[in-house]
Amino acid sequence: MQGTVLYGPRDVRFEDCPEPKIMEPTDAVIRLPATCVCGSDLWPYRGAQEIKGPTPMGHEYVGFVEEVGRAVTSIKPGQFVIGSFATSDNTCPHCQYGYQSSCVNREFMTRAQAPFLRVPHADGTLVATPGGTPPDDLVPSLLAASDVLGTGWFAADAANVKPGATVVVVGDGAVGLLGVLSARQMGAERIIAMSRHESRQKLAREFGATDIVTERGDEGITRIKDLTKGIGADSVLECVGTQESMMQAIQSTRPGGFVSYVGVPHGVSLDGAQLFFSHVHLHGGPAPVRRYLPQLIELILNGKINPGKVFDLVLPLDRVAEGYRAMDERRAIKALLRP
Amino acid sequence: MQGTVLYGPRDVRFEDCPEPKIMEPTDAVIRLPATCVCGSDLWPYRGAQEIKGPTPMGHEYVGFVEEVGRAVTSIKPGQFVIGSFATSDNTCPHCQYGYQSSCVNREFMTRAQAPFLRVPHADGTLVATPGGTPPDDLVPSLLAASDVLGTGWFAADAANVKPGATVVVVGDGAVGLLGVLSARQMGAERIIAMSRHESRQKLAREFGATDIVTERGDEGITRIKDLTKGIGADSVLECVGTQESMMQAIQSTRPGGFVSYVGVPHGVSLDGAQLFFSHVHLHGGPAPVRRYLPQLIELILNGKINPGKVFDLVLPLDRVAEGYRAMDERRAIKALLRP
Repeated sequence: MQGTVLYGPRDVRFEDCPEPKIMEPTDAVIRLPATCVCGSDLWPYRGAQEIKGPTPMGHEYVGFVEEVGRAVTSIKPGQFVIGSFATSDNTCPHCQYGYQSSCVNREFMTRAQAPFLRVPHADGTLVATPGGTPPDDLVPSLLAASDVLGTGWFAADAANVKPGATVVVVGDGAVGLLGVLSARQMGAERIIAMSRHESRQKLAREFGATDIVTERGDEGITRIKDLTKGIGADSVLECVGTQESMMQAIQSTRPGGFVSYVGVPHGVSLDGAQLFFSHVHLHGGPAPVRRYLPQLIELILNGKINPGKVFDLVLPLDRVAEGYRAMDERRAIKALLRP
Repeated sequence: MQGTVLYGPRDVRFEDCPEPKIMEPTDAVIRLPATCVCGSDLWPYRGAQEIKGPTPMGHEYVGFVEEVGRAVTSIKPGQFVIGSFATSDNTCPHCQYGYQSSCVNREFMTRAQAPFLRVPHADGTLVATPGGTPPDDLVPSLLAASDVLGTGWFAADAANVKPGATVVVVGDGAVGLLGVLSARQMGAERIIAMSRHESRQKLAREFGATDIVTERGDEGITRIKDLTKGIGADSVLECVGTQESMMQAIQSTRPGGFVSYVGVPHGVSLDGAQLFFSHVHLHGGPAPVRRYLPQLIELILNGKINPGKVFDLVLPLDRVAEGYRAMDERRAIKALLRP
């Protein structure tokens, strides 16, 4: 089998890798009809996050179950399943509390930019689509549920988006765009997307954004204050992970409002006193996608949402390096890879 | 009139001050039967917070209305009233959202360690006790509502304390102790107070603490994990404001749990990635005491709570400097001053 390996900054290779096998009785091995490149893959790709030697890549996946370990009871070969970038047993206290991405048995997935994948804790991690194999045209949306939609949904949920709310989304990557879609689903009245890229603005509007703000930093904050009669937004989704985006999010929020942050912060430091006087609620972390999967799958199968639209570039899997390059250069929002 | 002025580290003087007068039509002037020293007064007293020249002190107050400005309509001379350390018009969008301590007309009170006090925005800031003048023995508890109880209550509310919850309170000052009382009122099942002082442990237990942890820092975190089967607490109230106490709070909380912080953080800096992976909710700021005042006054007048017990030292107002000294040396939890 061949799979994707990152060797160093901007050095992605598609090369021979060992075929995944059942290693633990709780494992499953699945065959992927599609996989993709994540915005978070760009941190190590750009050298902004250190890697220790060649690193297999990919953590978003859907597919057909090929084989399961002897302890797996709820997942069966032949099923079409969706998992999360973080594995979970779905039974530990953190899972039961709805934070499966902090499961005591959590493993962060990797190696999913490949045709086959081993999934640990298959019973707790994977969700099968009801009604058998879904139509092929829904595969991109179901793949999105695995991380980028689940993360955008968590961003909206963690920012307490409620019917009638005024919402700001900082970041026009795929997560931010799906944060817009999620906020719309949760009944937000006004959704302000911060974006300077025309194609992304267009998709943001399609997903439900009512306003676009192109300014950033202090100018962006001023614009949000102008648009909200000086009050600030009820809910702000921080979908970038830099110091600037985090401060922009906090300062765009009304006192007592809610800020979520869902991308691993890189070089972010929060001053305690400044946060104190901002009076905001702050919540984030690795999205507990598993909590939302049944609901998201249903919305997709019923045609209520079409998150797969974030894939604006489709490539054969062996050209994965082109996908990274296009996303790095912001020519593509998100690259879908077909094995 | 004489009042309390801080001249520099450990230099508190009780000296001639101008008599307060109505300056704005929205003002009231009240006569204080009691006032007190706040834990937050100790920051500048200890030199840990800079002051620019001689600074009048005191921001906790109850009293009899002496006079009101011509625009004041709901507060009348002769009433017994309680206010918050932060003034509020109680009509602006932030007030209506429940965050009166971020009112667009907010002023942080000072000059309350004196026999008389001018209160701006009297209609929005002051709450009169129903049923006329309260019995004198309830004055300490009503005074506590003005800040230290209101702040402890906000700590419990912001940490999402719910019936059945496991709660940790970091800090055994008066706010922490009243955080214990508040968590008990909100139905917490288990309340772990972190304290190494016997008299404070005793009061914590009286207010509803079920467990006492004397360890701090990493050892304290380990103890909390031991007491919660390795899970961490549902709600943690950070009532100190230092880097150590904040990290202790965050690391004692379960993933998806809630941390509140209610004292102005001094030298606190939060690492974004560490906060991200802790998976906690974080909320704090200056307590919107005004939001809670009607409810707290009712609980006190009905004898449901007795927050005045935090005053374990009573002094004539002109000996205010002794009150500071006793609290600084942790000989007293909180000093009540009688003009």
